[in-house]
Formats: sequence, structure tokens, C-alpha cells
Amino acid sequence: MAQYDLIVVGSGPGGYVAAERAGSLGKKVLLIERDLIGGVCTNWGCIPTKSLLNTAKHYHHAKDSTSLGVHAQEVTYSIEEAMAWKDETVKTLRSGIEFLMKSNKVEVVIGEATFIDEHHVSVNDTVYEGAYLILATGSSPFVPPIPGSKLSHVVTSNEILSVSEIPSSLVIIGGGVIGVEFASYFSMIGTKVTVVEMMDEILPMMDGEFAKLMRREMKGVDFHLGCKVGEITEKEVRYTDAKGNAKAVEASLVLMSVGRRPNTAGFENLKIEIDRKGIVVDDRMQTNIPNIYAIGDVNGRSLLAHSASRMAEVAVSNMFGTTKQRMRYNAIPWAVYGYPEAAGCGLTEGEAARQGKKVKCATVQMRSNGRFLAEMGKRAGGLVKVVSDAQTGCILGIHILGPYSSEIICFASEAVEGEMRIKDVKEIVFPHPSVSELIKDACFAIDHTL
Amino acid sequence: MAQYDLIVVGSGPGGYVAAERAGSLGKKVLLIERDLIGGVCTNWGCIPTKSLLNTAKHYHHAKDSTSLGVHAQEVTYSIEEAMAWKDETVKTLRSGIEFLMKSNKVEVVIGEATFIDEHHVSVNDTVYEGAYLILATGSSPFVPPIPGSKLSHVVTSNEILSVSEIPSSLVIIGGGVIGVEFASYFSMIGTKVTVVEMMDEILPMMDGEFAKLMRREMKGVDFHLGCKVGEITEKEVRYTDAKGNAKAVEASLVLMSVGRRPNTAGFENLKIEIDRKGIVVDDRMQTNIPNIYAIGDVNGRSLLAHSASRMAEVAVSNMFGTTKQRMRYNAIPWAVYGYPEAAGCGLTEGEAARQGKKVKCATVQMRSNGRFLAEMGKRAGGLVKVVSDAQTGCILGIHILGPYSSEIICFASEAVEGEMRIKDVKEIVFPHPSVSELIKDACFAIDHTL
Repeated sequence: MAQYDLIVVGSGPGGYVAAERAGSLGKKVLLIERDLIGGVCTNWGCIPTKSLLNTAKHYHHAKDSTSLGVHAQEVTYSIEEAMAWKDETVKTLRSGIEFLMKSNKVEVVIGEATFIDEHHVSVNDTVYEGAYLILATGSSPFVPPIPGSKLSHVVTSNEILSVSEIPSSLVIIGGGVIGVEFASYFSMIGTKVTVVEMMDEILPMMDGEFAKLMRREMKGVDFHLGCKVGEITEKEVRYTDAKGNAKAVEASLVLMSVGRRPNTAGFENLKIEIDRKGIVVDDRMQTNIPNIYAIGDVNGRSLLAHSASRMAEVAVSNMFGTTKQRMRYNAIPWAVYGYPEAAGCGLTEGEAARQGKKVKCATVQMRSNGRFLAEMGKRAGGLVKVVSDAQTGCILGIHILGPYSSEIICFASEAVEGEMRIKDVKEIVFPHPSVSELIKDACFAIDHTL
Repeated sequence: MAQYDLIVVGSGPGGYVAAERAGSLGKKVLLIERDLIGGVCTNWGCIPTKSLLNTAKHYHHAKDSTSLGVHAQEVTYSIEEAMAWKDETVKTLRSGIEFLMKSNKVEVVIGEATFIDEHHVSVNDTVYEGAYLILATGSSPFVPPIPGSKLSHVVTSNEILSVSEIPSSLVIIGGGVIGVEFASYFSMIGTKVTVVEMMDEILPMMDGEFAKLMRREMKGVDFHLGCKVGEITEKEVRYTDAKGNAKAVEASLVLMSVGRRPNTAGFENLKIEIDRKGIVVDDRMQTNIPNIYAIGDVNGRSLLAHSASRMAEVAVSNMFGTTKQRMRYNAIPWAVYGYPEAAGCGLTEGEAARQGKKVKCATVQMRSNGRFLAEMGKRAGGLVKVVSDAQTGCILGIHILGPYSSEIICFASEAVEGEMRIKDVKEIVFPHPSVSELIKDACFAIDHTL
């Protein structure tokens, strides 16, 4: 029987990073994947959506840059070609991950894993033995049992990535990150898009003021908040609005994006502890079975690709590292890659209040920023907000809505993780002109002393 | 006679920030400007060039996004409209600075300052008294005495911002930041562009490998390195190439961008110390006259807008602050806003070697990155390099060539300023997918341990 230092089940951004890191430390690693290498992130999540969103932004700009002096006639968008570009991107990245596995001497097996006991996994009728196991089986879209949810025009974030025509109308049930990104994409390419959200605001992790501006800036999208979907028919989505009135909206396509559920089936023989969120882990990613770790969406602690990768590093450090790292959740950034973009890291003002923290905050308008004005003009909206501890000045959160957010936000991860203070950031030199300068402006707005 | 706590001469990103900061501390401040509020940066530098570059990028994308599924017929670029957009941006920002002065109770006088003694300045025949003076008079393009340099088609970075037609051919003398940005702009809008540079590489602050890739990615531009211009005629720029051969290149327009010189005229009565670089200052920006400080280009220490702003804060902190700050130059970022973009902060590998520092470096290719691939495709080039101290692991420099560089680089400023180590950055969570993740990849390439 083949023996391994580590068997990783699932090859998404949790699993493949775990395999890579352990392999690079000279460990003998087996990576098991039942479908495509790269998991949801590479094949049906982060990467394909960002590919498509970028094509739509180019289409939007090609049509709508006359104020910049750029004129084009008959601008058209081929969803077929955009999908082909997206498929090519995904394929290239998948090959990249395969190469990474090879160069770190990770063995890869494609097939469904069956767990025999805490050290033995069977795939395609072969049994493998592992000193350690990492469960990184991810999550799947949750489809609530709404009447009509099994109709053929009701899809999840998986199937919507292979539509072959631009839908005339799309109703998105659920205004989280996935819902908002698809709303942005399809509205940019000409679909009439409606988002129906049960809560009273979209994007629950976002500062309320930012979410409101986000909706306002997404001009082509109708948002219906506080609305509960009751039924989906061939032609309509029927819902009850915030005031209790029965309403309906036409839909040639319906995207169900109300949430994701951890893939916890098949672990019965392991007697592993599972709660409502997913597999129970401590801050080292260890489960109740000492040699088994669980990382990424399957533990339900933070459903983000980069959280999974970080958990992978934490888990592997505890198995084979010179450090025994612990997972920290306070400095994990998130980003929404719509148009406009948004990103955040750390506490919002609202979360700080709920935690009883005394904070000092400042919000600055993007239109005071040179680069933003030069590129977007004075009618566009955008915001940057800094949340700091009122007593120590420590930066607790940074929130950005506007261009480049997703690339600037690493500054916030560094500041929150490094427990930087307002006075530290005021002494950092930001390049001029850049949107990132607004972080410094917000720090001076909190404390203008020198 | 009107008396002030501080008189600031020059209203660029040095002067207006100094006035704003001192004003916000409740000081009585006079700001003197001989031309337009905002100085070179706002009116003839950073802002107008970034406005124009952005319009050209949109034009380029509108023409060249067929692989993304975006098709457009008859794409045209109106330089007149692009210039109007640029002028509008500049006007809006200028108003913003004027508003900032008002809200910080800074008095503004437009006119040429005449220095009477170290406390008295006369403008428009009125004499003002200041306890402190800040000299922030900036710099001007240097036009070397090459035969033909006074011909009407030979311009500097000032005049080129108001050309009314797309030139058919442009020769740029000098491949620094200004030269490269204009090369990028004009080549994108259809001008045949040649850069003639005396040194053996463009962009002297850039890592050599990066500069080489930059030239390769700027496909529409001819670079002639190691070439010395001897004469400019009505139709040609004549130069001697690296091998000593006489050459000539056609030019309907010639941009002279060989450097800038500090504006140090008019300080005779102050007996202020001036060297080859500019006004001599210490690390508090103080000159040889204790109540006079000099900031920005005029002191020649770091000719960047954001350096000037930081010097302003340092100077004002030493006059009126609760801290007595000192200027540090090791963590000042730079950016080139061409296509592609590039940015850097801290030491390059070459500089580290010249300083005798032992370093560990790693360079990663952008095409291994998900977002880069999704947006740029696998044939585009881009690089990220991290330079760290071999012994301590401290990050000494980060260098980026590719999209979003100018917005990611603030991470580097923070890392270098905060003396972060490779092992610290490896624990920071970057959003996925983002180009910024490559910084973490480079850190793992330097040290793969956990």
C-alpha cells in the first residue's frame, strides 16, 4: 500500500496550496480530486467570473468613452468569444497548477475519495495510507426548496458560466458577492437584471453606506430589498415585497445565489465532528481527529479562496513546519469585482459598534482624488473609509468602493495584520496620483495633527 | 504689515500641502503662487499626463479587444476632446485645492514673490511678514544647448500638453519617467515614436531586467540607447549611436525631457545655501537659515510630487507639530503610468549590490497569476521582484511591472517603511485573484519554509 506523509482531498485553493507547501518541504504528498484540478475557484468561481467581468468592462468602455475622446461605431459583444477567452484562461491556470504539483513532487489522482479510517483513503479501488489527512472538499451552491427552483432556466453560479446567449432578462435571487458580480456582468452586456434580496441590504459584509452607493452606481440593475421569493414560474419570479405585497418580475434566466453549503458527505467512517457551518476545526485547522485537518469552505469559517490558501499554510505549518501557526480572521480582505469594484478588510463601523468597541472613523469621497477624477470624472461615486480604535489609534478596518479597490486592499491586510496605527500610516508615502492615497487622506481626517 | 506664522512660496504638492497642514493646526498661513494653484503636478505634470494616458488606454482597448469578444468599427481618437477632458480634470482639481485652502483658512496671493529678508516677502507691492518661510518653488524642464533646440517644434513637457493635433512623428530626447510616459501616450494614439536616450538603459531607477521588458512591451516605440543627440533640424533629430555612427530620425515634433532644474532664482537676498542639486536642506527640510525651510523639487532631493508632500509634513511638524519628524527616503515609491504600468519602492538588486548589501531576491512572472492571465492573457509580460536582506529577511525593495502596479505599490511603501520581513509578508492574506498576490509568491520563492 502506497504511504504518504499527507493526503489532501480536494484540489481547490485550499487543497492545492496545502499540497504545494508540504511538497516544497520535501514531504510525500498525494492530492485527490474528483473533478477538475483547481476546484471551484479556478474552474467555476474566482477565475472565470473575473475573466468575464473584464471582458464586459472593456465592452462598456468601448461603447461609453466619448467624453474621453474615444469614439467607436457598432460596438458588439460576443458572449461566445468571451466564454472562449474565459475557458482558455481557466485551462491555462489549471495547467499552471498541474505544473506546480509536478514541480513540488505532489502525486495527483483523479477520482472520488472514500474514507476507510483516519489513515486510509480509497480512490478508484486503490487504498492509500496517509500520516496526515487534509479535508479540502469545498462547498456547493445551495438551492432552497422554492417551488419552481428545479425548472431548467433556474441555474446556479456553476451553470451560468456556460450560457451560450446573452439572456434578455435575468433575475438574481440573493445579493451577496456572487449575485452582485453576475448582476454587474450581465447588466454590462445588455441583459435586464433584477436582484431580489431577502435582507434589507446587499453585500452583508460591506459598510451600509458603501452598499447603498454600490447599488446607486450599478445603474443598469434593479434591486429589490427585503423581498422573499415565493415561486419561480417559466416566465416570472414571484416574491413578497418588504410591505407584504405580492410582486412578480419577468425572467428568461434565474440565478440562485443565496449561499453555499460545505461538502461534508462521505466522512461518516471518520467520526469527524461537523456543526451547522461545516467541519469543526480549531485555529490550527485541526479537527477532533488529531491527524486530520480541514481547510477552506468545508469548515465554513471563511468562504473565500484566499482564506482557504492561508488555512492550508496554517495546517501544513502545524504538521511539518518550523513554526506552529494559528489562523487569524481579523485581517482577511474581501473584494467584489463588479463595476464599480469594492473591497474591504477588518471591521466595519457597524461591526465595531456591535462588538462594543469605541472607534474613530473617517470617510473620504473619491472625487477629491486626482487619479480618480482624471479617469472617472467628477460625476462618478466612490468612497474610502478607515476605522480605528479610539484609544490606541490602531487600524481596525479599511473599506474601499471604486476603481483598483481589489488591488489596493492588500495595504489594509498589511495594516490590520501589522497593527499599524493612524500615526504610522500618516508617515507612509503613497504614490501620487493614485487612488490609494485616499487611505492616507482618511487617516488625516481622523487625526490631523503632525 | 500683515503678519503670518508661515509664508509658503509655491503652491504645488509641496507648498499647498504645507499650507493645508499648518492651517489645519490653526496657524495663520499665506500661500504665494506666481502662476496657477497646484503647481506643475496639477497643471502640467502628474494630473494632465494621467488624464491623457487613461484616454489613450481606452482608445487602445476599444480597438484591440477582439480576443475578449469586444468588436468595434471605426474607432477614432479625438485629441481635442481628450485635451478638453484633461483640462476639465485639471480645473476641477485646482478648484479642489482652492477649496482646501479656504477651509483651512489659508490666505492665497497670486503674484511673483520678492524676498526682502528672512522674514519679509513682497508680492504685488505689498510686504508680508512671516515667522517661518517655506520655499516650494519647484523645478523647470532643462533644455540643453543642443543646436536647433530653440526651433518651434521642439517642446518640453509643458507645451506638449496643449498640442492640438496628433503629431505624425515624435522624437523624445531622454528616456526617464516623463519621456517614457509621453512615448506610451503618443504611440497609443498613433504617432510614430522614437526615444533617444544617452544612457544604456531607460528609467534609471528601475531594475535593469524590468526596464528591458518595459521596452519590449512598448511595442510601438523605437528605443535608441547609448545615443547622443548632436543637432535638431526642421525635419530630423541627428545623433551619434553607441558605436559612434552618425544617425538621424525624422521628427515632426521633438520632446526635450532630459531632466529638470530647481527654480532657485530670486533667493539672492536670503543668502541661502544652494548646491548643484538645489537648496541645501537637512532631514527636517531646514535650510542654513533657521526659520526657512525648502521642500519639493527646489531642494533636488527627490523630484516626485509625493516626496514634496511628505517633505511638507516633515517641515510643518518641525515648526508647529507635537512631533519633530525627519524625512526618510528609503520607502518612497515611484510609478510610471504608461502601458504597461510599472512601480517600485526601495532598493533594486543593483543598488543593493552597489551599497555592498547582501540580499536575497526573487522574481516571479505575472503570467503565473490568475487575475493577470484573466485580463491580459498568456502572451503579455509582467514581473514582480522582491529584494530582501539576506541576514534579517527585511524587505528592502519591491518592484512591479504590469497592470495595477501604481496602486499595489503602497503595499511596498508600508512594508519597507515598517521594516517588515519576508516571514511577515508570507502570513499576510492577499485577496484572490489579484495581481498583488505575486508579492507573496515572490516572498515564498525567497523562502519556502513555514
